[in-house]
Amino acid sequence: MQSMDDASPTKWHLAHTTWFFETFILRTQSDYREFDSEFNFLFNSYYNSIGRQYPRSRRGLISRPGMQQVKDYRDHVDRELSKRLECDEFATEAAELLQVGINHEQQHQELMLTDAKHMLSCNPTWPTYRDDPFDSAATPSDANRWIEVPAGMYTIGHGGDGFAYDNESPRHSAHLHATSIATTLVTNGEYLEFIEDGGYKRPEFWLSMGWATAEQNDWNAPLYWHQRDGRWHQFTLAGLVPVEAAWPVTHVSYFEADAFARWAGKRLPTEFQWEAACQIIAKSSDTSLEQEPFADVLMQQNKCIHPTRSPDGLMGAAWQWTSSSYAGYPGYCPPAGAVGEYNGKFMCNQYVLRGGSVATSSNHIRDTYRNFFPPEARWQFTTIRLADD
Amino acid sequence: MQSMDDASPTKWHLAHTTWFFETFILRTQSDYREFDSEFNFLFNSYYNSIGRQYPRSRRGLISRPGMQQVKDYRDHVDRELSKRLECDEFATEAAELLQVGINHEQQHQELMLTDAKHMLSCNPTWPTYRDDPFDSAATPSDANRWIEVPAGMYTIGHGGDGFAYDNESPRHSAHLHATSIATTLVTNGEYLEFIEDGGYKRPEFWLSMGWATAEQNDWNAPLYWHQRDGRWHQFTLAGLVPVEAAWPVTHVSYFEADAFARWAGKRLPTEFQWEAACQIIAKSSDTSLEQEPFADVLMQQNKCIHPTRSPDGLMGAAWQWTSSSYAGYPGYCPPAGAVGEYNGKFMCNQYVLRGGSVATSSNHIRDTYRNFFPPEARWQFTTIRLADD
Amino acid sequence: MQSMDDASPTKWHLAHTTWFFETFILRTQSDYREFDSEFNFLFNSYYNSIGRQYPRSRRGLISRPGMQQVKDYRDHVDRELSKRLECDEFATEAAELLQVGINHEQQHQELMLTDAKHMLSCNPTWPTYRDDPFDSAATPSDANRWIEVPAGMYTIGHGGDGFAYDNESPRHSAHLHATSIATTLVTNGEYLEFIEDGGYKRPEFWLSMGWATAEQNDWNAPLYWHQRDGRWHQFTLAGLVPVEAAWPVTHVSYFEADAFARWAGKRLPTEFQWEAACQIIAKSSDTSLEQEPFADVLMQQNKCIHPTRSPDGLMGAAWQWTSSSYAGYPGYCPPAGAVGEYNGKFMCNQYVLRGGSVATSSNHIRDTYRNFFPPEARWQFTTIRLADD
Amino acid sequence: MQSMDDASPTKWHLAHTTWFFETFILRTQSDYREFDSEFNFLFNSYYNSIGRQYPRSRRGLISRPGMQQVKDYRDHVDRELSKRLECDEFATEAAELLQVGINHEQQHQELMLTDAKHMLSCNPTWPTYRDDPFDSAATPSDANRWIEVPAGMYTIGHGGDGFAYDNESPRHSAHLHATSIATTLVTNGEYLEFIEDGGYKRPEFWLSMGWATAEQNDWNAPLYWHQRDGRWHQFTLAGLVPVEAAWPVTHVSYFEADAFARWAGKRLPTEFQWEAACQIIAKSSDTSLEQEPFADVLMQQNKCIHPTRSPDGLMGAAWQWTSSSYAGYPGYCPPAGAVGEYNGKFMCNQYVLRGGSVATSSNHIRDTYRNFFPPEARWQFTTIRLADD
Repeated sequence: MQSMDDASPTKWHLAHTTWFFETFILRTQSDYREFDSEFNFLFNSYYNSIGRQYPRSRRGLISRPGMQQVKDYRDHVDRELSKRLECDEFATEAAELLQVGINHEQQHQELMLTDAKHMLSCNPTWPTYRDDPFDSAATPSDANRWIEVPAGMYTIGHGGDGFAYDNESPRHSAHLHATSIATTLVTNGEYLEFIEDGGYKRPEFWLSMGWATAEQNDWNAPLYWHQRDGRWHQFTLAGLVPVEAAWPVTHVSYFEADAFARWAGKRLPTEFQWEAACQIIAKSSDTSLEQEPFADVLMQQNKCIHPTRSPDGLMGAAWQWTSSSYAGYPGYCPPAGAVGEYNGKFMCNQYVLRGGSVATSSNHIRDTYRNFFPPEARWQFTTIRLADD
Repeated sequence: MQSMDDASPTKWHLAHTTWFFETFILRTQSDYREFDSEFNFLFNSYYNSIGRQYPRSRRGLISRPGMQQVKDYRDHVDRELSKRLECDEFATEAAELLQVGINHEQQHQELMLTDAKHMLSCNPTWPTYRDDPFDSAATPSDANRWIEVPAGMYTIGHGGDGFAYDNESPRHSAHLHATSIATTLVTNGEYLEFIEDGGYKRPEFWLSMGWATAEQNDWNAPLYWHQRDGRWHQFTLAGLVPVEAAWPVTHVSYFEADAFARWAGKRLPTEFQWEAACQIIAKSSDTSLEQEPFADVLMQQNKCIHPTRSPDGLMGAAWQWTSSSYAGYPGYCPPAGAVGEYNGKFMCNQYVLRGGSVATSSNHIRDTYRNFFPPEARWQFTTIRLADD
Repeated sequence: MQSMDDASPTKWHLAHTTWFFETFILRTQSDYREFDSEFNFLFNSYYNSIGRQYPRSRRGLISRPGMQQVKDYRDHVDRELSKRLECDEFATEAAELLQVGINHEQQHQELMLTDAKHMLSCNPTWPTYRDDPFDSAATPSDANRWIEVPAGMYTIGHGGDGFAYDNESPRHSAHLHATSIATTLVTNGEYLEFIEDGGYKRPEFWLSMGWATAEQNDWNAPLYWHQRDGRWHQFTLAGLVPVEAAWPVTHVSYFEADAFARWAGKRLPTEFQWEAACQIIAKSSDTSLEQEPFADVLMQQNKCIHPTRSPDGLMGAAWQWTSSSYAGYPGYCPPAGAVGEYNGKFMCNQYVLRGGSVATSSNHIRDTYRNFFPPEARWQFTTIRLADD
Repeated sequence: MQSMDDASPTKWHLAHTTWFFETFILRTQSDYREFDSEFNFLFNSYYNSIGRQYPRSRRGLISRPGMQQVKDYRDHVDRELSKRLECDEFATEAAELLQVGINHEQQHQELMLTDAKHMLSCNPTWPTYRDDPFDSAATPSDANRWIEVPAGMYTIGHGGDGFAYDNESPRHSAHLHATSIATTLVTNGEYLEFIEDGGYKRPEFWLSMGWATAEQNDWNAPLYWHQRDGRWHQFTLAGLVPVEAAWPVTHVSYFEADAFARWAGKRLPTEFQWEAACQIIAKSSDTSLEQEPFADVLMQQNKCIHPTRSPDGLMGAAWQWTSSSYAGYPGYCPPAGAVGEYNGKFMCNQYVLRGGSVATSSNHIRDTYRNFFPPEARWQFTTIRLADD
């Protein structure tokens, strides 16, 4: 089921991530026999170098192959890969693309959840996907603290050995202007104040394009909020539940994040300021900082995103909009070949998000990771972290 | 799965037809307990008197109830109806609406096939729904014969005892102008001549609105025709097959039917001329007429629409566009109450089709039955029968 | 200035009507030199046989030729025609097309007014075009009378010698069912009752397509009605004036006319019943009928449409929607050649209007004249006349 | 006349710029009587704090006031302003807003030309606005030279005394990465090579959104280019002329500029690199640089944009797309009040252009001036300057 152009059916995600391995690794092997020649059209997302694509908006119509055939496809590709990986030469050669493929699949694991949530939200019976809301639940913080980010030169971008996407490079120096960044995310309670203060009815807080978007779509609250019996509820993966004031606000667009910040007399941080704040916390001798949700989110999120793993941590962190338009770092060059279409060609009219959400794979939680969505997007687990100059 | 606004998912058809019985018959019983209160919103098609409706274009997003729950719903309603029908008083009172409900469900049985066909056609792998194409196959006729319909007064509309829809009444007299009506349907072969003579490129054959529609949608053949390896194929419920010249052309819009007729120097019959032709054949002493496909279609179609029942007959007859805009007969009044929304409110910008298709329930095949679709519709099994003045 | 796709700028009307004479009469003369070869593209409205056309929706962008050049064009064509008409042979040959050309220009004279009215209505300062509202003002009638139209055979279509369009032919016999037709038009006062009775909020009165159109466009009154200081006003060519209860309601769509009739427990007449009523009045010995507005409208409208000519008559009659979908009469054939595109190709999804409006040339006021517009059109001077079976 | 939503009629520009003075300066004076109360609705462009606005897309429908009334409006406001400016206190107080008002009007002077050009381009007769093409004509340069911009800290933003917009502030320091910037603009000849090398057909050069835009709109050349008799012509204010290879390419979108740069193996400069290059040239002892078109454009353009003033200079410079998304400088705060809506609320999904065009007022030509348009905009005089890392 496909509930909007931006979202894809689960079956498609499953087939597409397998297609990625088949296309970028197996197809280069002369002895490989493709599973089904039609799949190269059906499950290519946007790689023009590979060939034409079945229209994104119609992915919900791919009645065939059925789920069983897609599972067979996955088995086939797994088998073919495993077999070849026994050969060291192949393993070495394929290592880099394998890592991209695995990270790619992890990104789609997140999308499967966000897309399913959107799909279920279209059903007026508010179906339940799991018992636990899985939406963001924040450990209450005694005080809003602010991390100081002094002016100066910083090193931005991925350094070390681990995997990182091309868009996190080249590592480079940047001069930042001084700011402070909040240790906590904006909560539902705070966001409700914005709503009740006429936030959605006062154009002075909004970007021109944001105001037009909000008017045209009758926005008056975050994506999944609904008034019922006189109070706000939010649709979660556990169905419709009353809005909890202490949870971080989620499913807001860049436009809403920006309007909220202006209403609050603050700003959104740039993505570089956000990254610098992580470095500052990591080096800080103030160990209490690590107890802060901010630190949790930025540094230890991998421990806490699944309630079972970190019942005491910040459950439910979400992607944080920055004020940075998504662009290549100085000297950025996409990799050669089709895989170069992965990130670079989307560097236009999108805004960078940092941090990761409850639905993000824990090994994607790192200081330098750059997520990006158009400013009107709301179906991801997105939230707001303020900065103050 | 829902492939376009006009088509509905099978699950929705199943639930909606049950909703019809529940709403129009069971809900009036004080001791009836509805199965699920949400269903009255989800499965109401267009009855404003009953309440608001879930948007038609989003029927594909009704993830819940699932198929099992819909089956339970059907069982529940069947049970509740059966139980009550043991009471004679109820049975008598409900008889008329029961008959409407059954005929209504039969109409949706046809739609399930046409909607499924459309949905499958969106898949570039051309899935197969059944072994037999099920598309129209015509018994070849030695000669194109023409039934004379002399000028004069005719009685139009449903008379006898059997069931008929409100739009087939009142039975009334009409003065018709003389015409002749073809005994055979236009074939793929004939339609191909039209195409090859530039039919889709010569505006002189087309209604202005038809020409605009064809240009805008790049029509250059019937809906399911595709060029492959230099020849025409058509998508059927048995997958993609080469176009058979002898089959009746199917999946053409009123615009195409009208343009073809003009190209051929002929016309489309009015719905009254069509109905008069049926009466003439029925009274004719020329028994050979009954061997004609025309007679088959008009009089005996119920014997032949399922290949197993009539292997020698006209397999694959299709709905025949008439030149009549869909309107109420003189003195027409829709029934009181919500069921009055069944037919009457659609009497605008639609054209009447007569005859029935391979997918039509055999007890819907009658002289007076009036089907109707907008002039651009092509996903039903529609065809062309010519008239000549 | 062009305020919507359906309306054209005055300058375009002036050039197009001249282009009609040039194209259909002068261009066939070997010694004729066209005024400007670009005009054949710019000012061809919809004649595909002549060539491609500048898009209708962009007629407002034809900055060049300017008005002076268009006047020169008109002078040029007038001169060339006059000169040739001195030759009897040419005059005889051209007579028929000349008459079409003159009637065509008269139709555009009406459109110039209706299009200008629409354009001015888009200006929130409510500009004044003339002192006199020019909207419909009805002579009050003591009583609503009804003309009986008995069942029987009638002769429909244009007979006599005068000019008539191809769509008024062939003259033919038709069997009509009995009805009565109101002698007066529905007034603003009556229409206001419909509004105040929730007419625009109760789907039971509306065609399905009408309801959808009204909802989508937020219709809650006729096209040019506006609430101001708690009461209804209507925009006229004399600016915004309070709604006069005694005037015929104007600028209603077919959808609204049909809904009003259903609300009133009446119907719209068919175009044939309307035409039959004219014949009945003409033959009637009840001379008082001719004093009725109905007679005025139908028979003597040419005396009254311009206030100066008939200060005591029915000022402001308007086109009356009938329930008849626009179609060719039995045996109808459009004329050969490009002029055959004049009427025939529009016979789809339009409804016939009869009678003529205050803006109609008086020599177009005749029993058999068939105007036609899509059911949602409201910018013409349209009104409602009821029938009762 | 209004040829698209983005462009406004000349009459509207004239009234709006006067409205700006009336609204921001005169209306605050208690003794001022507004000229016409409707104008505050009709000629408010986008200032929500002032009130609601007549829809932008319908500006072409403002038939009233006519041109004479708009001229009277301008005289009225000029008179009222002049009278009051004799009072020193008023003059001092109003000085800043007056300067904004004058610069605002100069921006609209440019828009009047670009909007008129677009409007005339919709006319297939290619009207002539002036004798001289007025499109960009470049002084031929012997060699493509490159200005080195070394890595390091630079000061960005407006400093001195003269007028500058709020978006040119605060002046601040920025660390730039090394690059070289071309002294010449990309020429038509070079752009033609891109086209002939399949530039518009090879997705590998394009941003994803650019490719989609180009496909959807059938772009295959700059906005005003047309094939005629086998060679490229471009529509100019002097009509359609053959494409001159030596002229700078104009009327390209950001998408095209970016694709061209990628094809050429180069980049677009950031707006900061561009501004730094100006500073470098200004300080350079290499006086030959000032002879370069680059210097002309950047430093002396005010001498040359009007042919009469600088017949030997670089005629026809155009706005140069940079790779910088339009955003506020660090610490940027829009001015208080409605005038704060001037720039700040548009900082989303737009790209910065630098330099100025043939249509730009000469006192707008400065190093720090930031123009901005969405990446798909093509109707301004826009061009490409390359950078090379």
